[in-house]
Amino acid sequence: MKRFDEMTAEELRQAKEELIKRYKDYQDLHLSLNMARGNPSVDQLALSMPMLDALNSKSDCHDESGMDARNYGGLLGLPEARKFGAEYMGVSSADEIIVNGNSSLNFMYDSLVRAMLTGNKDSDKPWKDCGKIKWLCPVPGYDRHFTICEMLGIEMINIPLTEWGPDMDMIREYVKDPQVKGMWCVPKFTNPYGGSYSDEAIKELAALEPAAKDFRIFCDNAYTAHYIYKNTPVLNLLEEAKKAGHGDMVFMFGSTSKITFPGAGVAFFAASVDNIKFIEKQANVEIISWDKMNMLRHLRFFKNIDGLYAQMDKHAAILKPRFDAVLNGLEKELSGKGAGTWVKPDGGYFVTFMATKGTAKRVYQLCKEAGVTMTPAGATHPYHADPDDSYLRIAPSFPSVDTLEKAIEILAISAQIATIEKLEA
Amino acid sequence: MKRFDEMTAEELRQAKEELIKRYKDYQDLHLSLNMARGNPSVDQLALSMPMLDALNSKSDCHDESGMDARNYGGLLGLPEARKFGAEYMGVSSADEIIVNGNSSLNFMYDSLVRAMLTGNKDSDKPWKDCGKIKWLCPVPGYDRHFTICEMLGIEMINIPLTEWGPDMDMIREYVKDPQVKGMWCVPKFTNPYGGSYSDEAIKELAALEPAAKDFRIFCDNAYTAHYIYKNTPVLNLLEEAKKAGHGDMVFMFGSTSKITFPGAGVAFFAASVDNIKFIEKQANVEIISWDKMNMLRHLRFFKNIDGLYAQMDKHAAILKPRFDAVLNGLEKELSGKGAGTWVKPDGGYFVTFMATKGTAKRVYQLCKEAGVTMTPAGATHPYHADPDDSYLRIAPSFPSVDTLEKAIEILAISAQIATIEKLEA
Repeated sequence: MKRFDEMTAEELRQAKEELIKRYKDYQDLHLSLNMARGNPSVDQLALSMPMLDALNSKSDCHDESGMDARNYGGLLGLPEARKFGAEYMGVSSADEIIVNGNSSLNFMYDSLVRAMLTGNKDSDKPWKDCGKIKWLCPVPGYDRHFTICEMLGIEMINIPLTEWGPDMDMIREYVKDPQVKGMWCVPKFTNPYGGSYSDEAIKELAALEPAAKDFRIFCDNAYTAHYIYKNTPVLNLLEEAKKAGHGDMVFMFGSTSKITFPGAGVAFFAASVDNIKFIEKQANVEIISWDKMNMLRHLRFFKNIDGLYAQMDKHAAILKPRFDAVLNGLEKELSGKGAGTWVKPDGGYFVTFMATKGTAKRVYQLCKEAGVTMTPAGATHPYHADPDDSYLRIAPSFPSVDTLEKAIEILAISAQIATIEKLEA
Repeated sequence: MKRFDEMTAEELRQAKEELIKRYKDYQDLHLSLNMARGNPSVDQLALSMPMLDALNSKSDCHDESGMDARNYGGLLGLPEARKFGAEYMGVSSADEIIVNGNSSLNFMYDSLVRAMLTGNKDSDKPWKDCGKIKWLCPVPGYDRHFTICEMLGIEMINIPLTEWGPDMDMIREYVKDPQVKGMWCVPKFTNPYGGSYSDEAIKELAALEPAAKDFRIFCDNAYTAHYIYKNTPVLNLLEEAKKAGHGDMVFMFGSTSKITFPGAGVAFFAASVDNIKFIEKQANVEIISWDKMNMLRHLRFFKNIDGLYAQMDKHAAILKPRFDAVLNGLEKELSGKGAGTWVKPDGGYFVTFMATKGTAKRVYQLCKEAGVTMTPAGATHPYHADPDDSYLRIAPSFPSVDTLEKAIEILAISAQIATIEKLEA
């Protein structure tokens, strides 16, 4: 089959007519299919049900250090959970870990808020008193990262994300500006690509010498254990930054949200011991302690880090057929047509679809009108502004394979219609 | 026996000699007794162990509304938990409730941070851009309330707390200043007195007309179900404020921290529907959802609000002998001596001891050197500055009755020594 951009006007007209017929047939089915958010499926949730037996009325609720998980205290987390967190986050010491609440996103927000209101340990003054703060945002990226910056009035700067990591030349240039106080990154199974940063990218980030001495890389380890096709080894940014003498520059965040129960998991924060000591004083104002019973429940369920990875193998086995359905569907419907490209992820929760430039919003709308909910076009970019109007994020985890097959066919039909409309315009 | 201030110098010398002998005898025992923090005792924690069976691997984890507690979603809490929260917080509708994380203190901090960084729904601009913000603080009060204000650079103003509530004339005068943006209050079993605001005090607070239109009363319902001697009925401040046409002026906070497990409970926030709608937008930036599994665990354990009060009866039965030990000990050692007064609480977690003016720090120090840890003198006041150097807060919940009897004797001996030292000076 010819690419659309090689077709004659008549061929385009015919192709469009057929596509619109298929589209209308789907509309008549009044479907309601959702590929919008990265929620684990019911099968995945079932994997963690045994965790609910890990603590019961007969349990001894002290951790290995002797701390009673049932009472106040332990601001930085149960000592046993901090050790586990160090293994999970890949850092050398439990002293570099705060085990916090149920949401790493919340701790990211919190960490930015602390910097705004009181400053980091190496700040001359709170960021709220520093004029316009700027932040580097590899794109495509995670909408909720960008929304935090937007709420706090932090100016976001797009940094193109390539196959192996963000554009480092741009980053090195931007960090000469002392108003640039930090950046987001998701080094492993990045949201939404599902690829990972190369060793070079990690080392170059670790070697950064920003003008702002209180600069922070907010490193979201959301998907560090979430392999599907390939468990890519990725260097640990905090460890590399320590080697480069920049250990204070990196804040790392992670959680068990997509390992046990979303919203009822345990979140981890990793940073240099000096950062942890500084944040401990601030955190002591915010809260008396996070939920140590849930930490203990997780520890008893996993037993050790191998237990966590055994759980991830089971998640991968459930996710793989869904990702296969998406990738095979796109291949079948769109291969060689010039109506969009996509990235095969190694892991994570998403497939990125790059629609023909200038059509992502139209594709989103066509999908919606045929009953397929996607994350809105633009969500992958700060201010919801994708300059190419191209990126769409597919979240295959929650729907069934059947649903995904239908939804992807509708997406592919929509992408083709939008491409033809664009060519005809 | 004579009061110390009626004794001759020789009588004082003799009394002091005897007291110092008793004090040294205690020092020789190298005790380590802690009356510093309001931690529930191990017996109290045991009351909630059956809650750990309320959710197990066989449980259906949907609430009565059908929401799956195991997945993302439900930013404002499980619908069933919001209904329960409305009953617990004494407000008329579940729409006035956000069931949040494990710590009402954290939601207080969060609420102040949101006001600072983005403003309340009725703010012209964020409080950080409003110059010096001021806050009214009934004293004695809760140290962690004051520490939040201190961290955020909010200027605190002492408002004397009388038997029936705070000095309302002072409050009405201060709120004429538009820089005064809010106040703390703990209307029921106030921290540390353990008494409660009268109906008049609640109604006068509800009727306040502050110059700052975005003024907020932060009402901490920490002890609303924590009766010991008398379950004083207290008017609901939010309901009264609604009646007075000032429903937006009140933020109410509560949790199950001292009902089930401290740090592993569930927190509630109550406010007008308009406030909730505004905060929902902000909270949606901070977090995807709080821990709905822990909400469900609590719902299944309590079954209904009567279940919660049945639990509180058991807490009261455990706490009462400890409070008796403190009150009887103080009565026995100090009655009629003019070496300090104290307040018999109706409920809550504390007994307030007012040492002879100018001696609280000395009493704290003497206790410490005899192995009794108290909350530091001054903690009951903003900036740790008690102008009378008189207030000490006794936390009897955690220690055993035996420990308390010893600790209170040491406190009483210390208070007498410090009083004599003061008279001799």
